[in-house]
Amino acid sequence: MMLTVLTREDAVALIKEKTSGSRPATEKVCISHSLGRTLARDVTSHEDIPSFDRTTVDGYAVRAADTFGAGESLPSQLEIAGEILMGENASVRLERGQCVRISTGGMLPQGADAAVMVENTDSSQGLCLVYRSVAPYENVTKTGEDIRRGDTVLKKGTTVGPAEIGVFAALGINEVEVYKKPVVAVISTGDEIVSGDPKPGQIRDINTPLLCAALEKQGCGILRFGVVPDKSAELESAVKDCARKADAVLISGGSSAGARDMTVSVIDSLGRTFFHGISIKPGKPTIFGMVGGKPVFGLPGHPLAAYFVFRLIVTEYIRTILDMPPEKPYGEGVLALNIPSNHGREEFLCVKSDESGLIYPLHTKSGIISVLSQAEGFITIPRNSEGLDKGTVMEVYRL
Amino acid sequence: MMLTVLTREDAVALIKEKTSGSRPATEKVCISHSLGRTLARDVTSHEDIPSFDRTTVDGYAVRAADTFGAGESLPSQLEIAGEILMGENASVRLERGQCVRISTGGMLPQGADAAVMVENTDSSQGLCLVYRSVAPYENVTKTGEDIRRGDTVLKKGTTVGPAEIGVFAALGINEVEVYKKPVVAVISTGDEIVSGDPKPGQIRDINTPLLCAALEKQGCGILRFGVVPDKSAELESAVKDCARKADAVLISGGSSAGARDMTVSVIDSLGRTFFHGISIKPGKPTIFGMVGGKPVFGLPGHPLAAYFVFRLIVTEYIRTILDMPPEKPYGEGVLALNIPSNHGREEFLCVKSDESGLIYPLHTKSGIISVLSQAEGFITIPRNSEGLDKGTVMEVYRL
Repeated sequence: MMLTVLTREDAVALIKEKTSGSRPATEKVCISHSLGRTLARDVTSHEDIPSFDRTTVDGYAVRAADTFGAGESLPSQLEIAGEILMGENASVRLERGQCVRISTGGMLPQGADAAVMVENTDSSQGLCLVYRSVAPYENVTKTGEDIRRGDTVLKKGTTVGPAEIGVFAALGINEVEVYKKPVVAVISTGDEIVSGDPKPGQIRDINTPLLCAALEKQGCGILRFGVVPDKSAELESAVKDCARKADAVLISGGSSAGARDMTVSVIDSLGRTFFHGISIKPGKPTIFGMVGGKPVFGLPGHPLAAYFVFRLIVTEYIRTILDMPPEKPYGEGVLALNIPSNHGREEFLCVKSDESGLIYPLHTKSGIISVLSQAEGFITIPRNSEGLDKGTVMEVYRL
Repeated sequence: MMLTVLTREDAVALIKEKTSGSRPATEKVCISHSLGRTLARDVTSHEDIPSFDRTTVDGYAVRAADTFGAGESLPSQLEIAGEILMGENASVRLERGQCVRISTGGMLPQGADAAVMVENTDSSQGLCLVYRSVAPYENVTKTGEDIRRGDTVLKKGTTVGPAEIGVFAALGINEVEVYKKPVVAVISTGDEIVSGDPKPGQIRDINTPLLCAALEKQGCGILRFGVVPDKSAELESAVKDCARKADAVLISGGSSAGARDMTVSVIDSLGRTFFHGISIKPGKPTIFGMVGGKPVFGLPGHPLAAYFVFRLIVTEYIRTILDMPPEKPYGEGVLALNIPSNHGREEFLCVKSDESGLIYPLHTKSGIISVLSQAEGFITIPRNSEGLDKGTVMEVYRL
């Protein structure tokens, strides 16, 4: 049975529609274990950061007005009323004509509204000469200037990186609520695929380790099922088992038309196939269905194609259930070569940049897997494009 | 003591010179545990991939010459000599005028040198009509076409990602030799810094969690020392302890001039300071020294500045000892705004892109940490630049 071939947009829209209701459960983790996890709730600030007006220079806290008109030839003269030590509550109140010594990061005392740099002053015998005027709040970070109490500082669906952990720490948040890692089962099929050493005519199982690593990098848990021969009963039992234990199932392989049809029949016998075929290159014979409420993806057997389908289609499912924002390209690049037309399918090409920053596609015709390790990213050639000219500015995506 | 302020290039060159002799020890790990690790040896192929000539289509293995001249109106007629099953050693030998059935990925039999797609054939009663000629090796991936025996497929210093794991699997490599994770100690200093809830004038320790997460993401092990007050004896004992236990030491803090000088004195009392100051913004008061043969980095206390120094300077040290290749920008972007001159220091600006793909700098003047979580990358404004014009094409680096 050959179902309709969809465009990538339609395929992704259908996958989102069928899976967006199945958010993973959430769990609380200590922020030091949150790297790479996905926030399950917006993070709102319960305080102002900074929580007090702070200087950004070493020097003197002043009332800005006391320095107005000061210059090299006519310094303002201020009385040094004391010193604010680092970490100390600035309990003094600055009166007109006074200043206090302060270090970078120190708390501005009441009455002060600016700081002068020590380089612009001279001091002796309790007096400070200020040779440069400062505007109100010059050299000061005001309370709440970085983060305001009540601000939503991080959105649900954000992947936690070092910066986010820094924000949690600033806000005194020790634990965050993240989605539990979705567990994805990985099955390789094909009578020619073996886990051990191959005999003539056989090949090693590349897709299981490749897809498991890609899932791990994407923040998923893994159920590594292994290799299943092209036999309906064995595939059916594997898919049934995986759909019960995991949140989603990837079946790669079935390179030949017959084997692909078998995957479709197995999904149909256990659940339902929604599409078989996406007008992309590589990756056309992609299958999507549901078994027991769990999405099942049929990926091509060719490792490069399987990886692209993972990267373009399966990750959209993962982004959907984890509430992640749409992906952005990570930059642009200028094509070093003409690229001929691709005959009606949206095409994905591995690219590399040369020393001048031009990007060129890597030869993937015969590429099984090594081209993926040589590439820095990929570009997309639109469906029905009549080819791309040298010099075209392309969006580049990370592999 | 104020040492010379270096350019970033000179600072990095000096760090490389002082640390390039100290490679971490290596260890062997199973490829399924190698994601994110760094290869300690080149990986060379001991076999050809594919290890036999394979078809890339469903159809018939043929001698190409037997199809020459074939067309819709005048098909070649071939005898079907059998079928190659998937995973089977193709032991038959194809004679002139013969063909055998074969599926995508199947092993080409001896004598065959091409494959015709089933769509371009008709068959009945043991005969196959071929309506389209094929050139030698059309629809075939030749032995060694992806990887040749003896090829160096991955270089020492490569960070292992899914693609590399796919290459290991293709080659039958189950274990790889990687560098042990360098262990980096993280110390926060400052009398105003507290690990728990801050009182007025105090602030939370942002740099310890921020830098630990950045180190973890960079593939390092972490020795989390915690907060040390601005007291020489305590800092000295902390640095001594860390330099003994870890491969490198990061000391962040000492925002005020006095505290920075204290860090320099402590390093000098235990070892030697090589520089204090890099002409970059943010991050000028960066310190580099060695204690007991271990590099010690003094980072600014301001979290955004500490992160940039980590990202620009400390990662160069990590890349050096792990043999990693020089970093490349991850793309280019077009400036949406004019950016004024930056007065003689190389400047780093957090950027974000808008919907049309233009990049604009994020306001970082008052940014303590939140700006880092809003940014998609950063750009570099050269030292002594007189400002950048709207429309300038900039290299964008990942944060």
